[in-house]
Amino acid sequence: MNIISRQSGAAFILKKGEQLKIQSPQGNQVSDMVLFNLNDTREKISSGKTLDFEESILISRGNYLWSNRSEKMMMILEDTNGRNDFLLAPCSPETFEIMYHHKGYHPSCFENLYRNLEAYDIFPDDIPTAFNIFMNVQFDTDGKLSVDPPTNTPQDYILFEAQKDLIVGLTACSAEDSNGGSFKEIAYEIIAQKNE
Amino acid sequence: MNIISRQSGAAFILKKGEQLKIQSPQGNQVSDMVLFNLNDTREKISSGKTLDFEESILISRGNYLWSNRSEKMMMILEDTNGRNDFLLAPCSPETFEIMYHHKGYHPSCFENLYRNLEAYDIFPDDIPTAFNIFMNVQFDTDGKLSVDPPTNTPQDYILFEAQKDLIVGLTACSAEDSNGGSFKEIAYEIIAQKNE
Repeated sequence: MNIISRQSGAAFILKKGEQLKIQSPQGNQVSDMVLFNLNDTREKISSGKTLDFEESILISRGNYLWSNRSEKMMMILEDTNGRNDFLLAPCSPETFEIMYHHKGYHPSCFENLYRNLEAYDIFPDDIPTAFNIFMNVQFDTDGKLSVDPPTNTPQDYILFEAQKDLIVGLTACSAEDSNGGSFKEIAYEIIAQKNE
Repeated sequence: MNIISRQSGAAFILKKGEQLKIQSPQGNQVSDMVLFNLNDTREKISSGKTLDFEESILISRGNYLWSNRSEKMMMILEDTNGRNDFLLAPCSPETFEIMYHHKGYHPSCFENLYRNLEAYDIFPDDIPTAFNIFMNVQFDTDGKLSVDPPTNTPQDYILFEAQKDLIVGLTACSAEDSNGGSFKEIAYEIIAQKNE
């Protein structure tokens, strides 16, 4: 498997029909993922369209990830942990300043996404709300949000299948609050389409 | 007040410090709103940043609407109905095809937003998840989403104050399910900044 070092990111191409498996080798680590159409990067993953079509805040096995053009980008084939967030934006320098009163430089998923995606002519303003894999966001019926430590073990994984040719941006999340206070790697594997 | 006819939309400039009041003259009508920075339209309203910074799915009086650049775009000064949605994308032609199995043309908030915003060089792919004013989206702790009829009366209103110079896109929503089965107008008023 490919390893994304702690507090860093990666970007790569995933062709239609290929599968993407994501795990945390040490467990308890979140990974933010964004998707773009390889052939027209103005088409991208959309939280609003996904929550709309899937009629659920929680997105897991059997759900699709949809684009801003109302097209399917990925299907979730397996999800052994079962907790992912699609509400909150990737952590950014301002997250640490405004919410955590951090002073000085702090690595962030936002920076790790756009620095890896700029090779594909995707820039900071193009980064949408990410699909936050293994992120344990809790909410009550009053809508109050809280971020709890992730519960994924080293054995847990999520398996996606690309529904079109994609550019994938992926991180090992940099936010203390999302990862139970420590940073770990993220591992990913691209599984070629099986011949039928 | 300015009137947006049933199943249509409008776009206009709102300067920093100006207030925007939105009402449904007949009641029980939703209005989708998107925001762009007047001076650089790549900065736009962000559901993910707003839910993150406000730590709530429900956004009402006292909350800010934030941009993808982590800046405040609007503050909500008053909200007498108190139910707005920031989860679901604006209804689009595909919403009616995929979710409601509608055949043929159907007006949509998505079309009414981009057709009005194209005068500002804002195009369909630029439309983010909208702030859905008076939209009565219910959810349980399992994340299951449902759209109930809106509860706003003709007296209810929401009052925003612009935190920077903005382009505002606004609709009288075209989706039967969001509006209790019938379409009504939306009224809006721009209130100039008061001299101190």
